[in-house]
Amino acid sequence: MMTSMMALIDELWYLKRDLVSDGYDTALNRLAQEVPMTIHEYPTGTPCWTWKVPEKWTCDEAYLETLAGERIIDVKNHPLHVVSYSLPFEGVVKREELLPHLHTHQRLPDAIPFVYKYYDRDWGLCLPQTLKNTINDEAYKVVIRTRFENGSLKVGEVVVPGESDRCFILAAHLCHPAMVNDDLSGCVVGLDVARALLQGPKPFYTYRLLILPETIGSVAYLSHHEELIPKMNGGLFLEMLGADIPHILQHSFMVESQVDKCFAAVLADSDPPIVRKPYREVIGNDERQFNAPGVRVPMLSLSRCIHPSTAPNYPFYEYHSSLDTPALVSQERLEASRDLVLKMLDAWEKNRYVVNEFKGEIFCSGQNIWIDPTVNRAGHDSLFKIMERCDGTRTTADIAVELQIPFQAVWEIISLLLDRQLVRLSPKPVPPALTRY
Amino acid sequence: MMTSMMALIDELWYLKRDLVSDGYDTALNRLAQEVPMTIHEYPTGTPCWTWKVPEKWTCDEAYLETLAGERIIDVKNHPLHVVSYSLPFEGVVKREELLPHLHTHQRLPDAIPFVYKYYDRDWGLCLPQTLKNTINDEAYKVVIRTRFENGSLKVGEVVVPGESDRCFILAAHLCHPAMVNDDLSGCVVGLDVARALLQGPKPFYTYRLLILPETIGSVAYLSHHEELIPKMNGGLFLEMLGADIPHILQHSFMVESQVDKCFAAVLADSDPPIVRKPYREVIGNDERQFNAPGVRVPMLSLSRCIHPSTAPNYPFYEYHSSLDTPALVSQERLEASRDLVLKMLDAWEKNRYVVNEFKGEIFCSGQNIWIDPTVNRAGHDSLFKIMERCDGTRTTADIAVELQIPFQAVWEIISLLLDRQLVRLSPKPVPPALTRY
Amino acid sequence: MMTSMMALIDELWYLKRDLVSDGYDTALNRLAQEVPMTIHEYPTGTPCWTWKVPEKWTCDEAYLETLAGERIIDVKNHPLHVVSYSLPFEGVVKREELLPHLHTHQRLPDAIPFVYKYYDRDWGLCLPQTLKNTINDEAYKVVIRTRFENGSLKVGEVVVPGESDRCFILAAHLCHPAMVNDDLSGCVVGLDVARALLQGPKPFYTYRLLILPETIGSVAYLSHHEELIPKMNGGLFLEMLGADIPHILQHSFMVESQVDKCFAAVLADSDPPIVRKPYREVIGNDERQFNAPGVRVPMLSLSRCIHPSTAPNYPFYEYHSSLDTPALVSQERLEASRDLVLKMLDAWEKNRYVVNEFKGEIFCSGQNIWIDPTVNRAGHDSLFKIMERCDGTRTTADIAVELQIPFQAVWEIISLLLDRQLVRLSPKPVPPALTRY
Repeated sequence: MMTSMMALIDELWYLKRDLVSDGYDTALNRLAQEVPMTIHEYPTGTPCWTWKVPEKWTCDEAYLETLAGERIIDVKNHPLHVVSYSLPFEGVVKREELLPHLHTHQRLPDAIPFVYKYYDRDWGLCLPQTLKNTINDEAYKVVIRTRFENGSLKVGEVVVPGESDRCFILAAHLCHPAMVNDDLSGCVVGLDVARALLQGPKPFYTYRLLILPETIGSVAYLSHHEELIPKMNGGLFLEMLGADIPHILQHSFMVESQVDKCFAAVLADSDPPIVRKPYREVIGNDERQFNAPGVRVPMLSLSRCIHPSTAPNYPFYEYHSSLDTPALVSQERLEASRDLVLKMLDAWEKNRYVVNEFKGEIFCSGQNIWIDPTVNRAGHDSLFKIMERCDGTRTTADIAVELQIPFQAVWEIISLLLDRQLVRLSPKPVPPALTRY
Repeated sequence: MMTSMMALIDELWYLKRDLVSDGYDTALNRLAQEVPMTIHEYPTGTPCWTWKVPEKWTCDEAYLETLAGERIIDVKNHPLHVVSYSLPFEGVVKREELLPHLHTHQRLPDAIPFVYKYYDRDWGLCLPQTLKNTINDEAYKVVIRTRFENGSLKVGEVVVPGESDRCFILAAHLCHPAMVNDDLSGCVVGLDVARALLQGPKPFYTYRLLILPETIGSVAYLSHHEELIPKMNGGLFLEMLGADIPHILQHSFMVESQVDKCFAAVLADSDPPIVRKPYREVIGNDERQFNAPGVRVPMLSLSRCIHPSTAPNYPFYEYHSSLDTPALVSQERLEASRDLVLKMLDAWEKNRYVVNEFKGEIFCSGQNIWIDPTVNRAGHDSLFKIMERCDGTRTTADIAVELQIPFQAVWEIISLLLDRQLVRLSPKPVPPALTRY
Repeated sequence: MMTSMMALIDELWYLKRDLVSDGYDTALNRLAQEVPMTIHEYPTGTPCWTWKVPEKWTCDEAYLETLAGERIIDVKNHPLHVVSYSLPFEGVVKREELLPHLHTHQRLPDAIPFVYKYYDRDWGLCLPQTLKNTINDEAYKVVIRTRFENGSLKVGEVVVPGESDRCFILAAHLCHPAMVNDDLSGCVVGLDVARALLQGPKPFYTYRLLILPETIGSVAYLSHHEELIPKMNGGLFLEMLGADIPHILQHSFMVESQVDKCFAAVLADSDPPIVRKPYREVIGNDERQFNAPGVRVPMLSLSRCIHPSTAPNYPFYEYHSSLDTPALVSQERLEASRDLVLKMLDAWEKNRYVVNEFKGEIFCSGQNIWIDPTVNRAGHDSLFKIMERCDGTRTTADIAVELQIPFQAVWEIISLLLDRQLVRLSPKPVPPALTRY
């Protein structure tokens, strides 16, 4: 029995899913029950290109008390009360010393912020600004009992095998403790997409869903699968797919790539329109590792995110805070996002070079594809403009972008031509041999 | 003795020149008396890529009568009274049944329209709207005696042999019965251009004038001359060259081709200016077959046509009607169009890559080509800007387009350099071998 | 002991430095005392591509007298009083005959103009317009004793040897008699740049400073060093660097060349801003020979010049006149120009392809190059945008131009990466081998 996306969120969201941690492992193992998943493990200290896998981190106890013993903050009350990867600390500290270690949210005075110190380490606690305003005693007692131990960073990989070993990557991160829209929503949408693909007919491309801790997870996986990189044609990062905000697509670094063109053309008929922005101009996540030098896999990013990046509530109101709870998210929106991803992948499956098996214009009446211009001028014109671009040098996405027609509309014509064996599809361009002088 | 263009029009225009028909053959044979012409024959049923040659069609009789025997329409009174390729039909039909078979002109209530049903067949008659308005009886007698027989589609080809077997195509269609501006005017202008070329010195390129039935004629010729296609460098379709409307040039699908650049640059100094429009944005004719996938010969189209295509009288007032008569056309305008085509071809002959036989700037005073900048600053600047682009990677047209100078002005300088053996012409680019790092 | 630029100007400016002349040789020999210089000699009549080396020209005497013996003009009073390369002439001429041989300055009524007739020869004298206005007698006596003899055109070459034999050209002309800003200022700035380079560490590229007579000097040198041309990566022409006018950079004919991009990026942070203009849109000098067909060395031009070229005082008020004296020029401005050239060459030295030795994004914290975006968002973004372009296909200049960041700012990041061996530099692009389909 499949568990719904929303049910998975309810079950897993509150776990303390830090980069390398028991909470992360629990969540990943639970997701692995829903779909065949390989879990790659990278032990603490493993070199990953310029990076190293960090220690496993555990917080046994963390609280702030008045000297009179009144507990002001306790991680037992909320996992975000301690800085992720906080150093251990115990002692009585003066107010002035304490304050820089108490983190609040920039915008939300009543929320506990999500703060992490993975590499630039320090000890610290997190609390609402309103609570911090009451920190007026001369000194407080701090107890932070955290452990840094050898462990294993884990990357979950779900493979949907295709006819070709060239593969498309779906990626989402799972390492944001006790939050939902960012990042659990992306994981469950990815999972549901994988479930749908596994249930459908065998695709042409192989699809790989990666669920991982942000950044270091991608670097760990890529550096240990270098042989796969040349086979990765494209990718899509998934995040923030539950909030009540319209979708937005962030392009890859290689904006002229086939994936970029294909997804742009697929979204062209969206209602309401889906905004597209250049690389790095919506939000940065694991797609950065895939687009980076030495990898250069064109990975786009789909989210529901307020734009432009200067908007006061960017990327969404409850971002990186204790307010990012299941209440933000709806099964309906998650399904809409899943269906959009499936629509994008469906187009990607089809998007190969369209090679003409015909010469000259096609005898449309004879092929029963004639559109009478006196009845439907736009349809007639599109038919001919599409046909005349089926020449082995353009994919369906190329034609769609060139003519500013949605992918589906172009594909309708291409599939008529395919049915009649007037064109064939090729994964590589098949340009005419001709040079004229 | 050469017959003038206007005299040929007067002699041939009223013939019932349907696609494959005796009238068409009569007209083509008459043109063949004016110039050496090869007539290619393609029998009915011959496969031509995705097409097939249609039957020969003959209309022996066609009329509409009242039941009282009053003849309302008779093809004897005008060839357009019957739909081209109408099915035969005889019988008494009720008014409601009859009306959909009676075709009128969209814009011209007093004209008989030109209607054809080459592939989507039906029986039909054509008449002025004003006459149709009087069709009020309950029933009428229809007689349409047409024959569909095996015959031969004919393409007339006039070859002007050049030094090179690479060839330029001039094309015009002849299949519009009892009309003049569209299409006989293009045929006679093409013929006069061919006569002029045959009388002149041997050109560098070979020129082929094709006179054919629209679309299927081009497909028939191309599919039976595939070996010629790689040698076709460019082409020009000719049509509607008699009306009192300014010239307009429609570019090919390959707007960056040398022909496109050359013709754009030639027309740059036209007075009044000649408008240029992208492919498919003036009117569609046989150039579509030449520009199509698997052929990709850059063929432009020259006509005298109202634009934009949304103008109410587009492409000209009398289009596809019995009003398109010799009265629309003048020998003077036909000659002006012929001279314009000859000017374009003259430039095309010259338009090869300009390879420098010099290095550095030329010693202009020593070569007697110095232009004193204090006397003629623009001339001096153009001289140097042209000279410095003579580097084996640019044709005269490339230089003209880059500098936004008319072709003739660039050629004046190039020919000075040719005279002095400071440059030579090459059909292919001769780029410098150099790579600098 | 090095002589200062200003002292060299004071010493040499008044010499009659015509194309091939004793005055020119005296000046060049003097400069050769300041720096190791090879002097190339090209005898009169030597063919140089389409050119020939002209005769040595000497003016022994030149004056204009009234018939009463009152001397109105005498070359002894100013070297500019005789047209450079004037034919000899002696005789009494009528006023009407005389006037066309008396040259004045277009804009400056009180100045003697610089007029030359190197190839289109005639006899002539130069004088202020105010003096010409007094030429009212019926006839005058003219004496112009000039000699045209075999001689040698001389090109001074200072070589700064680098690790690579690929070379950068600095060029300035010396053939403008008794003038300073145009052209002696460029020569002394070039000389000082060469002195500085020779005193510094061995550069990567070889630098060649050429001091020559305008145009024919460049043609003579290039046509006799054809084997060097493929090794010339770029160049900079120097002129008019003493006047109190801001710098302006004229691009080469190949505006996308690495030198063009590099210099544009270097000047991007200039204060006040330095205007850049396309090729031929500031002023024409020897860079024309280097950019010309068959040579195509991207040579830019740096000057202090009024723009646009339509300004009334273009290129500077005292241009080509006896007012172009040492008073226009200051050692301070010459040094500022020299320092600017050195800054440009310093960047050129560094501007090679940046090849990533890393994959994925760099672990910035671990490499101690992390910029906290909450502290410095712009710095953080630049860091990542630069890093992600270090991929073997882009130089520092390419990255700077693409990101519209000054060269120095990009180099700061690149040099951090170089220090950490995260990137290396390559003179040629090292694109990734990858093709994805």
